[in-house]
Amino acid sequence: MKFGVRIDRLIESLQCLPGVGPKSAQRMTLHLLERERMAGGELADALRDALEHVGRCEQCRNLSEDPVCPLCASPRRDRSLLCIVETPADVLAIEQSGGFDGIYFVLLGRLSPLDGVGPEELGLDLLVTRAKNESFREVVLATNPTVEGEATAYYISEQLRALDIAVSRIAHGVPVGGELEYVDSGTLQHAFQGRKAVN
Amino acid sequence: MKFGVRIDRLIESLQCLPGVGPKSAQRMTLHLLERERMAGGELADALRDALEHVGRCEQCRNLSEDPVCPLCASPRRDRSLLCIVETPADVLAIEQSGGFDGIYFVLLGRLSPLDGVGPEELGLDLLVTRAKNESFREVVLATNPTVEGEATAYYISEQLRALDIAVSRIAHGVPVGGELEYVDSGTLQHAFQGRKAVN
Repeated sequence: MKFGVRIDRLIESLQCLPGVGPKSAQRMTLHLLERERMAGGELADALRDALEHVGRCEQCRNLSEDPVCPLCASPRRDRSLLCIVETPADVLAIEQSGGFDGIYFVLLGRLSPLDGVGPEELGLDLLVTRAKNESFREVVLATNPTVEGEATAYYISEQLRALDIAVSRIAHGVPVGGELEYVDSGTLQHAFQGRKAVN
Repeated sequence: MKFGVRIDRLIESLQCLPGVGPKSAQRMTLHLLERERMAGGELADALRDALEHVGRCEQCRNLSEDPVCPLCASPRRDRSLLCIVETPADVLAIEQSGGFDGIYFVLLGRLSPLDGVGPEELGLDLLVTRAKNESFREVVLATNPTVEGEATAYYISEQLRALDIAVSRIAHGVPVGGELEYVDSGTLQHAFQGRKAVN
């Protein structure tokens, strides 16, 4: 015995959100219907609006409301420096760090043959076309340091080296502010392999 | 630097959901726009539909799609037994327990003068009217065992006793399956005060 068809439908629909199971979906539904009806209506509008108007940047494949995203369109970015990331969230994290002033290319995934994700799904043909037509001084590979992320970085580096483009990988090591004692051994291995001479 | 006005609006709107802060709202937004567009559209529709068609049962004040909710309309419920709860979620929990076959009255809150919640906001006039017109054999107070829930239960019991209606309070004590060692002292006090003779 539940409340009714429409309420059950909303509980069901909310579970498409990441991290939301039946219990929290029920809590959200009751919360919205009991005392957040205005905000709920605004949420429905915002969702519909975003789904209709947010597409992909035709240059970097990032989520964008315009054909070319603000980052790609900005005259203040260094267009000879390209950073390759897996997701739009990575772009946001790097932008918030303030450590990069080039442009991005968003794969929207990583190579994962078992899931049917190959080079085409990641837009690598677009990347190669751009690499041929634009003069990139350097391409920074910032895929995640997971098995699939590393494989993707390796695959892309092979493609770009064939075009004679300098390719680099972001550094992996001990996080700033972290304590050695609590860092996992894989990270520590990376930190030692990537050690630098002190002048 | 964010993605754009519409994406920011969606991130903002999602934060009306309970337990959703800026970080999870951003994660939800990117998830929906990157790979759950169908489900996102369905969510927007379900939300809009529920907000438009879900109101309150005119008898018990529970959330309902019809003027009278299925529980109040059911001929199989004992209409002489009324259970008073704070929220629709409480109705659901009691229904799932299967321990009650009467009808409900949903306060949609608890007495809380500091928050401006008085007897009118809880629909107590409707409750008293119903208590006068219908012949309740017993009214079970199932508000939460918090200070405000207890105060609300006390207030309602005074109102109903004036009408000569039998009023009871659900039992508080050690949860079934719980171990005494881990039960808080307030609950243990209740368990001792509410002890029953063993025949």
